[in-house]
Parts: sequence; structure tokens; C-alpha cells
Amino acid sequence: MAIGGAEDKLGATRILRRFVAEAGGSDARIVVCATASALGPEIVELYDRLFYKLGVAEVVSARPRDRREADKQEHADAAALATGIFFTGGNQLRLTTLLGGTPVAKLVRTRNAQGVTVGGTSAGASILSEHMIAFGDEGSSVISGSVRLAPGLGLTNRFIIDQHFTQRDRLGRLLTALAYNPFAVGIGLDEDTAAFIGPDETLEVEGSGGVTVLDAADVSFSSMDSVSEGQPVCMLGLRLHILVAGSSFNLHTRIADAGSLQSRKE
Amino acid sequence: MAIGGAEDKLGATRILRRFVAEAGGSDARIVVCATASALGPEIVELYDRLFYKLGVAEVVSARPRDRREADKQEHADAAALATGIFFTGGNQLRLTTLLGGTPVAKLVRTRNAQGVTVGGTSAGASILSEHMIAFGDEGSSVISGSVRLAPGLGLTNRFIIDQHFTQRDRLGRLLTALAYNPFAVGIGLDEDTAAFIGPDETLEVEGSGGVTVLDAADVSFSSMDSVSEGQPVCMLGLRLHILVAGSSFNLHTRIADAGSLQSRKE
Repeated sequence: MAIGGAEDKLGATRILRRFVAEAGGSDARIVVCATASALGPEIVELYDRLFYKLGVAEVVSARPRDRREADKQEHADAAALATGIFFTGGNQLRLTTLLGGTPVAKLVRTRNAQGVTVGGTSAGASILSEHMIAFGDEGSSVISGSVRLAPGLGLTNRFIIDQHFTQRDRLGRLLTALAYNPFAVGIGLDEDTAAFIGPDETLEVEGSGGVTVLDAADVSFSSMDSVSEGQPVCMLGLRLHILVAGSSFNLHTRIADAGSLQSRKE
Repeated sequence: MAIGGAEDKLGATRILRRFVAEAGGSDARIVVCATASALGPEIVELYDRLFYKLGVAEVVSARPRDRREADKQEHADAAALATGIFFTGGNQLRLTTLLGGTPVAKLVRTRNAQGVTVGGTSAGASILSEHMIAFGDEGSSVISGSVRLAPGLGLTNRFIIDQHFTQRDRLGRLLTALAYNPFAVGIGLDEDTAAFIGPDETLEVEGSGGVTVLDAADVSFSSMDSVSEGQPVCMLGLRLHILVAGSSFNLHTRIADAGSLQSRKE
């Protein structure tokens, strides 16, 4: 599960509620990793309180502050017992710098492959995929060099995630990332909006905003390889879907479905 | 010809140079209509000087300040003799408020259909089509009610134009306009970038930025009709092309072509 940041924590908490349900509901044991955040202990307490309020069995905080700490056995034990693992927002490079290549990072991938729900918000969403947007420029233009990728946590390589998508005008940098190599699906998450991706590779939307899906599979031409840094890139034949709660996208077949929005009309 | 605003006026002036070439080069008689602009006579003088510098035969200024003035015979005479008609930037509603339904507006349409080159920058670009974006919100989200359309000058109804596209983050409002009725092609023009649309309905790009083409013909689902104002809209199956100078898009077949960008690679 990937959240675009600023998820509702006071109202209906639809996204976090669904995360808890996916992670086992009242049997859920959630590990919260706040390593990305520059905030004090209040960020840990906030999610601690939220998840208990949503009825989980246990919340464990894991906030390693350097790589040595990340290697501690307690974190591995917590991950091994978790039914849900949640990464807070902050700086995604702090997460990858601290966790990249550690046994616990590997364990998170293994546990996720075994069915454990792994999610994150903002920076915590960006790190989930193999290729992560580390930095980028604002704006909707596809500009060579306007985005810097870094290896992420690597739960999947099917997509590249961007967050605070509409709020921070990030279409251009996500398109640029796809132009580098069009194999991946680009997923732009608005604030208070989440993509839940199941084992069947179907992406379902939850929350109040939109999820922009950019499918570059049919791109007939891209000038990315012949453009100098800072210059606009030509890219022809992209497919674009704007999903909201109720609709879905299959990352394997690359088909978008209106789901309950369609039936609500009938 | 539609320019996204802020076209180069000091350097290579690629866009205005091409406009002049299309309008007859050294035989060109250009009418400049600065009605949209709130600036003083300097805006008229600026284009006057520019077009003469580019070698045209004559530049005529037409700047009616109310509807009665717009009806003056001198404007009709100027339009009847022009080989090119150019609308400056400013406020597109000022243009339509003053010119809408006047004989001179009709004459511009007729002359364009006869082959006279008609162009505009910024507001002057927006007014060219049948459906014009009058107001709208910034941001990339498709939000019901985030755009207000008004009737434009009506040279074509094949597309809806938006300008200062990347610079003012206008993807959302253009998508919203298409969601209202997906028949049109959405054209988002970056600054210093122009779309030249020939009688064969092929759109060619000139200038330093990108032209975002949004084709809603294959949209498989839109929730526009069942969403309240201010709520995000679901739209599935859009096609997206990012064009730069050298590439083109056929508004009839809706096929994008890399043109000289492709051959440059070979």
C-alpha cells in the first residue's frame, strides 16, 4: 500500500482503516518505521495511537537512526512477527541510506512476498518500489535530467511511485522517469489517497483524491536518448488513467476498470 | 497558429518568423489585434516593430476598445486585406466580450477558412477554438467544476487550447474540460511554444518547449456526470503525447508522428 502523504488521521481514516483490515484487523501486529522522519517522538506516538484506536493487537516502533542500529536483532524480530509494516513520511533517501542492503530490508521484502502487508506514506510510499524518485523538479514538462532515480526497497519493479502528486505538480518528473525506461507503470498519488496493490497485481484506490496512472507500454517514440540535459523530451503514445476510490488498474494486463463507479451509475 | 505565451521576441524568434512565413513572408500584411491586452500602446508598437523586422510588407493595428468600435469599417477592411491576423495576450474574456458575434469576428473565421493565417499568443491562442477555457484552477487533478468554458472565436472545434501550460500547472483544468465532453483534443501549450495547424489538420510544433496532446477519443469511462462539484473525477483510457519541435499530431487520424526527431536518430 502506497499513500500520497497527508492521509486523513482525524476523520473517517479510510486509508489507515483499510491498511489495518488488510494487515489482520484486531489480530494485526503493526511495525511502524519512522526512520524517514525528521520529527521527534511525536510521529511515533501519533501512529501508535492511531493504529491502537483502529483496534490492532499490537504496535511496535522501529526507528533505527543509523545502519548499525538497523542491524539490531530486535528490528528483525519485530519484522518477523509483524502482520503489517508501515513506513512514515520524511526523506526517502534517509530510508534507503539507512536500510538499503541491511538484513532487515531483505526481511521486509521476504515478509511482503509471504503476504505481509507493507505500506508507507509520502517518502514511505516512494521507497516501496525497485526504482525510487529521489529528487526532481516541479512542473508538468518532460525535461531530460529533471528527475533523479535511486534504488528503492524493491518490493516490486512493476511501477514507479510519486506522491503529493497534484499538490506538488509532479507529472513532469514522473513522465521523465518513465521516459528513461518505459517498462514500468508510473503511479502518481495525490495526498490522502492510497494505492492498495494485491497479490493479483491489481491496484485499488482508497481515499479522497486521485491516482494518476501512466502506462508507457505502447510508447511509439521517445527522444530521451538524443536530448541534452534541461531540454524537453518528445514522448508519443502514452496511456493515462485518472483513478479515484472505487476504480482499479491491473498492473499485469494494464487494464483500468471503473469498478463500483460504473455500477453506481447503473 | 496558437502560442503558449511568452514567445521569444529577441533571439531567433522561431515562432513569429514561421508565422510570418506562413502569412506570406515579404508580401505579408499582418493585422495585430491587441484588444486582450491591458498594456498601453507599447504592446502594439512591440509587435509592429517585430513584424517589420521579420520583413513583412505591412502591419496594421486593430485595437477596438468596445463593441461599437469593433464594428468600424476600418477593422473589416483591414481583416479583408490581411494575409495574417495576430491576437496578442491578455484576457481572453475581454476578446470574446468585445468581438463575439460582431461582423469582424465572422470575417476572421471566413478569412481563415479561405487560407489566411490566424494566430495568437496566450489569451490570443485560447480564443481561437470553439470552446475556450475562460477560467480554471491550477493543479494536475481532474476536479469537477475546476474549469469554466466559454464560446471562443470558433475557427475550429476539433480542440481545446490551454496556454502557459507547464508554467502554470494547467493539466487538471484541461483534462476537466475534456471530461465534460471527450470529443475534442486537448492541447496544452508551454510558453515559447506554438502549434501550427495546417489545412490538412496536422498540428506541427515550433519553439523551445513542449505541447501536451490529450486525446480522449478512447476514454472507456468517465465519472464526470455523477460527481459533485469540487470532487475528483475518474477518467480511464486517455492517450497522452508530449510533442516538441519537429514532431506532429494529426487531429483527424489522431496519430502522433516523431517526424524529423525520428530521422535525426537514424
